[in-house]
Order: sequence, then C-alpha cells, then structure tokens
Amino acid sequence: MAQEDVAPIRVGLLGAGTVGSQTARLLVEQKDELAARIGRPIELTGVACLDPAETDPFPWIDKSVVTTDTMSVATNSDIVIELIGGTGVARKFVLAAIESGASVVTANKALLAKYGPEIYAAAEAKGVDIYFEASVGGAIPFLRPLRESLVGDRVTSMLGIVNGTTNYILDEMTTKGLDFDDVLRDAQAKGYAEADPTGDIEGHDAANKAAIMATLGFHTNVTIDDVSVEGITRITADDIAAATAEDKVIKLLAVVENTEAGVSARVYPALISNSHPLASVHGSFNAVFVKAEAADDLMFYGRGAGGAPTASAVVGDVVTEARHIAQGCTGPVIPLYNDLKKAPIEASRAEFAVRFVIHDNPGVLAAIAAKFAEHGVSINGVNQDLKPTLKDPGYDGELQQLRLVTHMTDELTLRETVEDVCKLDCVVGEPSILRVLN
Amino acid sequence: MAQEDVAPIRVGLLGAGTVGSQTARLLVEQKDELAARIGRPIELTGVACLDPAETDPFPWIDKSVVTTDTMSVATNSDIVIELIGGTGVARKFVLAAIESGASVVTANKALLAKYGPEIYAAAEAKGVDIYFEASVGGAIPFLRPLRESLVGDRVTSMLGIVNGTTNYILDEMTTKGLDFDDVLRDAQAKGYAEADPTGDIEGHDAANKAAIMATLGFHTNVTIDDVSVEGITRITADDIAAATAEDKVIKLLAVVENTEAGVSARVYPALISNSHPLASVHGSFNAVFVKAEAADDLMFYGRGAGGAPTASAVVGDVVTEARHIAQGCTGPVIPLYNDLKKAPIEASRAEFAVRFVIHDNPGVLAAIAAKFAEHGVSINGVNQDLKPTLKDPGYDGELQQLRLVTHMTDELTLRETVEDVCKLDCVVGEPSILRVLN
Repeated sequence: MAQEDVAPIRVGLLGAGTVGSQTARLLVEQKDELAARIGRPIELTGVACLDPAETDPFPWIDKSVVTTDTMSVATNSDIVIELIGGTGVARKFVLAAIESGASVVTANKALLAKYGPEIYAAAEAKGVDIYFEASVGGAIPFLRPLRESLVGDRVTSMLGIVNGTTNYILDEMTTKGLDFDDVLRDAQAKGYAEADPTGDIEGHDAANKAAIMATLGFHTNVTIDDVSVEGITRITADDIAAATAEDKVIKLLAVVENTEAGVSARVYPALISNSHPLASVHGSFNAVFVKAEAADDLMFYGRGAGGAPTASAVVGDVVTEARHIAQGCTGPVIPLYNDLKKAPIEASRAEFAVRFVIHDNPGVLAAIAAKFAEHGVSINGVNQDLKPTLKDPGYDGELQQLRLVTHMTDELTLRETVEDVCKLDCVVGEPSILRVLN
Repeated sequence: MAQEDVAPIRVGLLGAGTVGSQTARLLVEQKDELAARIGRPIELTGVACLDPAETDPFPWIDKSVVTTDTMSVATNSDIVIELIGGTGVARKFVLAAIESGASVVTANKALLAKYGPEIYAAAEAKGVDIYFEASVGGAIPFLRPLRESLVGDRVTSMLGIVNGTTNYILDEMTTKGLDFDDVLRDAQAKGYAEADPTGDIEGHDAANKAAIMATLGFHTNVTIDDVSVEGITRITADDIAAATAEDKVIKLLAVVENTEAGVSARVYPALISNSHPLASVHGSFNAVFVKAEAADDLMFYGRGAGGAPTASAVVGDVVTEARHIAQGCTGPVIPLYNDLKKAPIEASRAEFAVRFVIHDNPGVLAAIAAKFAEHGVSINGVNQDLKPTLKDPGYDGELQQLRLVTHMTDELTLRETVEDVCKLDCVVGEPSILRVLN
C-alpha cells in the first residue's frame, strides 16, 4: 500500500509559543522524512492558541488549521501536543484529550509534578500513551532512557542541573563577581530570565523536575509537595568569592535519592569542586548524573531550554507515539508499582559549608567551635581569611568571614547547631549554609 | 488475570562470560521487579555455552537450563540474547533465532558492523525486533535515544570515545610519561587489555562502533568497510609530551559526519584541548557527543565496558522487547531509508598537527615551510622547543622537534605535503600526524 493511500495520523498542537512554533516547523519541514521513519504520514491538523495572529510570524503553519477552540483540537486528534504550560487549563485539556482517545505529548513539568498520578492513571485506563521527554532537561534524551533503557537496572540516585536561568545567573555571578540582584536585572533585560523570575530563582521549576525524576526513577509517586526546595536568592557575592577561593563553584542542584530512610527529593544550591563534570555545565546547558546499581555512573548533557532544542524532544515523542498508532499498540505505562515512603529533608545527610560573619575578637572561634561540638557536629575544615562585604553598624572593630565545612551530618542537627551559633553576640547577620557535593 | 497464570516470556542466553553471567544475574535476581515492569513474567529458559562448567561460579544460573546445544537455545526462545561475539557462528545463531521467530538482543558490534544490513532485513522480514544498546558505549543509553528520541531531528555529526582499552592506555601514557609498548604490557598484566590487543589498539573495535553510529544516525547502510581506521600504536611518548606542552590530550576518536561530500566514518587519535568535556573522560569510561540540527549539542557519558554495566544495557533491551511481546507488537525497525554516498577519507577536512624530527640547522624551517606553501597548506602555529627522544645515527648535530599546526585542509593535500617534506635530508624518521579537534 502506498503511503499516500493511508490516512495521516492527526496531530493537534495546543500552544504556539517559542517551543510550539518550532515543533510545528519540524513537523511540517521534515514531513517526508518523518513519514519514512514512522511508516505512515502525520499531519498537523490543528493548532490552538489564544489569538490566531500569534502564528503570523511562522509561515510554515497552515493558517486554515489555526483556531482558538482549544477543546476542539484537544479532542479531535490522534496525538495532542500540550505546550500551554501551567497547572490550570492545561490539566483540563490533557484529560479531555486522553478521554477522547488521544495520546498526549507534553513539556509541562508543573502539570506532571502536581497531577502526574491522576494523568498517568487516566492514560493507562484509556489505553493511550503519555510522553514528556521535554519536561526535564529540554532537548536531552534523558527520561526515555530512564523509562526504557535503565528498566532492567535499579537507579539509586540522580543529581541534575535542570534550570538554565539559575545556572546562567550563578555563572554570571562567578565570572563577573556581581551580586545576585544585579545579575538578575541584567538577565531579565537580556531575556534570559522572565519578568517574574520567581519560579526559576526560588527553585520551583527545578523542584517540578525533581518530582518527575524521582517518580520515573524509583517507580513511586513523588509530587511537588514531596520536594524540599531552596532557591538561589540568598546566594551573595561573598558566597561566590568563598567558593572561588576553594576552587569550587555553586550550582543549583536537583537531587533525588532512594535510601533506606525513604525516597528523598530536594533542590538546593551546592558547592561543587571545579574538577567535577557538573562544574563545567554552563549557561542554559543542563546535565543529569544518574547512579544505577549495574550501570554505575551515567551522565546526560545538552540544551535545557530554547525553542528548537525543546521542540526536538517533543517531536521525538510525537514520532514514537505515531509509530505506536501506526502499529496499533501502546508504549509502556508509567510503572508506579512501588509505594515508597518519603524521607523528610531533616533526615537527609550531607557535608555542609557554613559561613558566618563574625567580630574579629579573641575567643570567637573557640565559642563557635564549642557550639558545633555540643551538637556532635564534626568539623572537617575551617577558613577565616576573607573579608565580608557585610557591615555591623553597632560594632567598631574588624569583621571577618568564618567558613566551616562539616563532616557528614543530618540536616536537622546542622540547623539546630547554626541556630545556636547565631545567638552568640559575636555573630553578625544571617549565616550562609550550602551543601557540599563530593 | 494474576501474573502466575500467564506463560512466562522465554529468554535464551548464548554465551556465559563476563557480560552473560551478569545478565543472567540481573534477570534472575530482579525477576519480580522485571515482571512488574513488563506486566508479564520472564524466565531464563536456556543458557548455551561451550562447557557447562563455565557457569559453575554463578550460583544464580539454574544448572538444569545450561546446555552446549546453542542452536536449540537460539531457536526455542522468545528473546535470544547473543553474547558470543565475533562474526562467525554468532551470525548463524542470530539468523536462526530470527528465522525461528525470536527477537534478538546483542552486544556484538563486529557482527552488526559487518552483517548489520542482512540481519536488520531478516528481522524486518520476519516481523521481529533486534536491539543492541550494549554494542556501542557499553552501559550508556545512547543508541536508543538515537533511534527513538532524536527521531524527529536531523543528526549531523557524532564524536565519541568508544574504546576503553585505548583510552586507558593513552591516560597512562599521559600521566606516567611512558611509551606505548610499556603501558600496553602493563595493561595486559592487569587485565585491562587482551592478550591479543590488536582489535582495540589498531582501532577496529572503535571502527565497528563508528559503523553502527553512522548507520543509526544517518539512516543509511554504513559497514566496517566504509570506516577509515588509524589506531594508537604509533603514538609515542614524544607525541604525548608535545600535547601536554600545549595543554592538550590525545584521545582515540570515532567520528561520523553527514556532509555534502557524503557520509564519513573514521577512527583516529586526535589532539583535544583540556578544556573540552571529552578530555576528562578517563579510563574505561566512554562518551559520545552528538550534534543535531534542532537539539544542538548533546553528550552521553558512562561506563563503556565491564560485566554489570554492559549487562544493564542488555537487560534494558530485553525488558523493552519483553514488553513488546507482552503487547503483541514490535518496536521500530532500523530505518535505512537513505542511500547516502560515502565520502572518502582523503576528502575529509581537518586541522592537523604534524611533528617532524629535524636537524637543528639554519634554513630547515624555511625549507619545510616552503613545502607547505607549495601545496597551499596554511600554517596556524609553529613550535620548536622540545627535544626528541629519536636519534639520527648518521648525523652529529643537535636534533629538534618541529611541530606545525595547519588551518583546515583536506587529508589528501596534507598527506602529499608531508610526504614531500619527508624527502628533505634534514627530516629524520617518520613524522607524527594528528588531527586537532576544536
């Protein structure tokens, strides 16, 4: 049977922004090549957006299929690509698409981190597929290997730089020695950070991705509510200078672990040695380290954002699903057969780098060290040579920065120790607490 | 229907060596978890090896299924895992398995690089699958992303460190300043290199992988005969010292490109700057860089060899195939819909670093530079400070190393130029020619 005689697979696109327009471009421009790879033609039969004029800059989009009737596109396609974003209407359209018998491809990490279990269950019940490679790590083919290639192995932990905005900001702070606020303003002016950057800089975007990573990696439901989050807004030029002095960089990490205490998912800025491969992940690039029992260490690296790179991942999912439809079968369901308990962040163990600003008087170090000893927190290293930018208006003497690196301890003990130290009169302002990645 | 009532999927294993025994361990030890992931139990129903005593050290292998009748295992399984290696009997058993209706999982790069087209066609004709993740990059989930995730994109080039033995030898030469032969002997003593290391050190193993990478990446038949190969046996301690002096390392690279001149696949040692991510891939680790039109740069990194890591990739393939069988469908065929011409190595362009040993006399540099000018090869850098270890018995004066780095030129012109230079009386011995990766 010639391909021309076969009804094309209908693809509906919800959202025609940066990623949506590039997704449409790949689907249209590579139509013949994709048909050859699928074994059946696919056609972009609907593009839903708030205003049809949005698609004017994209000549490859056939204007006759553009509509504001999103529900019609969602429920009259074989494959629905959801690129609306957010957890509001996107959920409604995704569930409606599934209910209509369509398979869904989405890049929506917030939706999956919040409503993943509901959506996966709906897809499984209806016998359709859901793919979301672009939701974590942009263009990096990472979730599919996790779902399919490592399916015969046991993943024990993952560690990722999964937010390009914060990675760019920390890079700029490091290379230019500037403070957080200055770099953020510059990044917004250049379009690297959004007008409302909260989701990125407070770590929520990375936390959504951590929830998805943990869910797929450990085959258990992990939602955004299970992720402990700390962003980069409290990182100062002094923190960066202290890191540089130790040949380290600060990176915002998404960390997921499956330990005896339970599954742990957390996002926080951490100190990484410059010799670690993650230290050389710059700008909008993302990377994820995976540790598995048999495979050992793996790393996946690539562009974490951008229209064309993200669209590459979306179209890869579309082609996979189109092949399933052409064959009359489905892909693997999201296998959530484990019901693992969640480990509280307080129980998670790490080495910590704590930086205090202190009065440069005799006995200060002894007093602080005594507090750490009282709590049973062992000190691995001390450094007191950098001058702080912070001032103490009520104090005439010199100020210094005291940096302490602990041995492995748990989060709760560390916090109590630091709280106690901060009650000392010789300690000025808020301390900086960073985990150390070894 | 309870899982116990379903007939298990029969898995036959051909070969019970390092990888085979670990594959069996994962299949047996994770039996319940795998059944949950597949939705149907799988069972190791046959293990074929030359001598049943081979399996004695592996308590997880049920001795009642061990046999020397390889053909019987190959033709009485739903999934056949071929870990015999080589291009002889392995081909026979793989084709027999396919003919019997079994899907095949293999780690055999030599087989696929030579008989890939025949085997893919046989599988497609019979409607069964062939998976071979472990054949390139060991544990790294790389071929599946290439086959499936990047299916909506156009790969333009790939660049990989895909042979652990040569990577280990070059590492040792770099850190210890030793010559090739000394390091090789040491590596053999430690079991890092085989008794007959030819396949590794002459680049044939990497060339097999390059053929597979090019075939999957460019959707066209590329066999081992299309790959130009240069190993690392001619790399000397002087080459390494010269690289170190320029803050570079020498790595054996598999390079595949799709250019206007055609598809090119080649293996050669190249100079890489220490700031390049591939420079920090050490020992038995492998890494592959992929450049695609939409996704841009991607990198995949992990263990390239070893029993358990490789077995992780094998079992991932087995689980994928078992899911297909449980669903009554097949995976994507190897889509070789392009018939691209092959670009000859002579036409491939690169920057070259050429090192001559020369008499330290007036006019030597001028004479050599004139030869390069005659051939129209432009010089990008010259260096003449290191002393060679090479001696010229018929010459009393000082010897020096002259290192030239060219601008982009084609392989043929470069070779003719160097040949001409070597005819000069002031040039001693064989020159060293390395490509420079930028």
